[in-house]
Amino acid sequence: MQKIVIIGAGAGGMAVASRAKRLNNKLSVTVLEKTNYASFALCGIPYYIGNVVKELDDLLFYPPEEFTKRGIDLRFNKEVTEVDAENKTLKFKDLKSGKEETLEWDKLVIATGARSKADKIWPEIKDAKNVFYITHLDSGEIIRNYALKLGRGKKAVIIGSGYVGLELIENLANLGLKVTVIEALNQILPKMLDPDLASIVEDYLKSKEVEIIKNSPVESFEINNNEAVKVKTANGSFDGDMFIIGVGIEPNNDIAKQLKLKLGSSGGIIVNEKLLTSNPDVYAVGDVTEHLDLITEKFVWRPFAQIANKMGYIAGSNIGGLEAVFRGSVGTSALKTFDMVAAKTGLSKSEAEKLGYKVMEASLNAGIRADYIPGGENKIYLKVVSDDKRGRLLGAQAIGPGDSVFWRINLIASLLTVKGTIWDLFNSDIGYQPTLSPAWDPLIIASRLLMRNLGEKPL
Amino acid sequence: MQKIVIIGAGAGGMAVASRAKRLNNKLSVTVLEKTNYASFALCGIPYYIGNVVKELDDLLFYPPEEFTKRGIDLRFNKEVTEVDAENKTLKFKDLKSGKEETLEWDKLVIATGARSKADKIWPEIKDAKNVFYITHLDSGEIIRNYALKLGRGKKAVIIGSGYVGLELIENLANLGLKVTVIEALNQILPKMLDPDLASIVEDYLKSKEVEIIKNSPVESFEINNNEAVKVKTANGSFDGDMFIIGVGIEPNNDIAKQLKLKLGSSGGIIVNEKLLTSNPDVYAVGDVTEHLDLITEKFVWRPFAQIANKMGYIAGSNIGGLEAVFRGSVGTSALKTFDMVAAKTGLSKSEAEKLGYKVMEASLNAGIRADYIPGGENKIYLKVVSDDKRGRLLGAQAIGPGDSVFWRINLIASLLTVKGTIWDLFNSDIGYQPTLSPAWDPLIIASRLLMRNLGEKPL
Repeated sequence: MQKIVIIGAGAGGMAVASRAKRLNNKLSVTVLEKTNYASFALCGIPYYIGNVVKELDDLLFYPPEEFTKRGIDLRFNKEVTEVDAENKTLKFKDLKSGKEETLEWDKLVIATGARSKADKIWPEIKDAKNVFYITHLDSGEIIRNYALKLGRGKKAVIIGSGYVGLELIENLANLGLKVTVIEALNQILPKMLDPDLASIVEDYLKSKEVEIIKNSPVESFEINNNEAVKVKTANGSFDGDMFIIGVGIEPNNDIAKQLKLKLGSSGGIIVNEKLLTSNPDVYAVGDVTEHLDLITEKFVWRPFAQIANKMGYIAGSNIGGLEAVFRGSVGTSALKTFDMVAAKTGLSKSEAEKLGYKVMEASLNAGIRADYIPGGENKIYLKVVSDDKRGRLLGAQAIGPGDSVFWRINLIASLLTVKGTIWDLFNSDIGYQPTLSPAWDPLIIASRLLMRNLGEKPL
Repeated sequence: MQKIVIIGAGAGGMAVASRAKRLNNKLSVTVLEKTNYASFALCGIPYYIGNVVKELDDLLFYPPEEFTKRGIDLRFNKEVTEVDAENKTLKFKDLKSGKEETLEWDKLVIATGARSKADKIWPEIKDAKNVFYITHLDSGEIIRNYALKLGRGKKAVIIGSGYVGLELIENLANLGLKVTVIEALNQILPKMLDPDLASIVEDYLKSKEVEIIKNSPVESFEINNNEAVKVKTANGSFDGDMFIIGVGIEPNNDIAKQLKLKLGSSGGIIVNEKLLTSNPDVYAVGDVTEHLDLITEKFVWRPFAQIANKMGYIAGSNIGGLEAVFRGSVGTSALKTFDMVAAKTGLSKSEAEKLGYKVMEASLNAGIRADYIPGGENKIYLKVVSDDKRGRLLGAQAIGPGDSVFWRINLIASLLTVKGTIWDLFNSDIGYQPTLSPAWDPLIIASRLLMRNLGEKPL
């Protein structure tokens, strides 16, 4: 009986387990998980903190019993301490009893996810009971309880204005806290939006009484009696009643290093289309890996749940005996803060230029419904970037209300995945219904603006 | 000075005029329009009838002055009576004065749209003042006024359960009318949805107190004193206070026939990628044309506004001196009735089978947001159809709430446009944000179900 051992029971790891076992019921599948939870959705934690999601268990895709039913040996509170690639064994420790055991494996899957670097960067926060970061499901419980205990009118300081930071705002505000966001750079959402779009989101957040402090890299925390009272930045100190760090994660790669697997520049494990690492008996999936970017054909680290899920599914297929391929990703991310959605796929103009592309960009503020249909916010800001030689699409970003932003970016993501061009976008037969879209969709208008530069006829 | 004459000032015709004139200001561009309106959105008429749109002028993309400003000679109430292809002239009549004139042209553009066959099929309705169909912007005014005059509680009968019919329901109900829909076939939306999905929409409409009569092809109308009082069907008679016909349109091809242009089986003018007809000096755009279906590579008639707009833009580019291409369409349509959206792109399973494809289908009812996010309808019905040999996507249909249906279908439409496969769909890097999508999007789940049939690895 072939022995599959999976380290880490997040969405990716459990997808491997379920898929492999389903395809080949004769496999012995064991999952070793450090925490008490399996198959969890970290992306839901802000909504648990904000009490939108009532129970922590609601964030589990499946209850643990489901995996037992599927014949998967899922073990909680087990930390892997040592892996022997030569003899194909590993040692793990029970975190409650401290007992160590050894396990044999034929195929190993590393699904150890990401971890925070926060307490390496700022060692003083280690013992501060009011400084938090999200790494496990438990973090949600702890942060929510602390925020509820503080009570209304107290001040929460979020370090970092990435998507984690911005999704926390609304949820902390929901609990009645005043929210300050501290960003090291000169704009919010620096990895997602160009400065002009970011400043629109910033103004929107300010209109919701969120305080935004830019240009302020965090230097240290001032701790009093095991409580942080201030965060010191290059640009002044800011006090708060609780602090949540939304920056500084890295691949959780200790085991990969022990196995001397090939790592990328982020420290993520390099995997191929089958999700194999540089060791042909070791797979890796999810936030611990680097995979191929389909635009640049370089390896990238993208700790996103939907990617982890797909990787898990494909690794599980390969382990279960059905050859399958995960091509890579193009880097699609989306966030919602209050009623505003921001989303991005592929490269921004400046990112593309840095990579050596000759770039053109269409930038517009255009209607998402027929003009004559009343009701609600009717415009999005959209930018579409393409190569200036062949019209190949390179990326897009948008801000505006809800689904209308998210799905337009997804549609571009889909064309990026197949290396589509601006002419593919123009010819994309997007439907028209006055309450759902204008006769000239912003996406098609963008393609027209780009086509104009190259002459209308496909090269 | 080259003389461009465009017959018909709908969205398509005016797109040609604007684009050509913009690219080459030296062109003489004349548009002859039978009605009083230019650049109108017929798709908005249901919303004008329902008083959602207050003014008829709101349905104009641009006011007529805008075109004059652009240097376009736009003439209203002009009906073209005869075209001489040999001498490149045409005769037209002023519908008010009856005066006839002759005009020379170097390039002719036919943008005459579609017309109703209703009074050919049921000649008795010609003089009935309470039987309507939508062909011009005026129809909206006439229908709304009649409905308002009738008043609340009176009964409107809609003939046909296509998208026009279904979008009228909500709007007539808005005016307080009781609505009955009569459909010839054994399901509603026969061209858009499979019977199982159609029956869900039917139940939904019944829950809104809409009466749906199926299996009832209309045979005739009983007229009393210039008023229809009953519609007689193969399956019984149904009375009403007003009747709106939402079926039976055809390309308005009189001029095309006169010019002996090549027509397709619908009567639509066959156009090539440049929007040229079989006469190299005559272009045609919009609802009067047949164009290439990108899936079947057959000519099809698709009288949709977004297609007319694109055709107009591309024809205008070519006329203006910039070579450009309209590849064709894949047949994307969408409708909204009350809070339910139905959309389709490409082929249904049965349509594909009739065309000789070996087909597989994924059919699912799946969440459109993370399960744990509360609020509103959270599921859509989705079907995705692909070829059973190479996994090429062939079509999709969906029903459910709002944007979430529309954009998922648009994303598939976009992949159909580039001849994408089920593996392209799986690898499409759709973003994940718990309030906007689940970690496993219904589209990706559908791709998995389809991949399962072919083995996971791309063929």
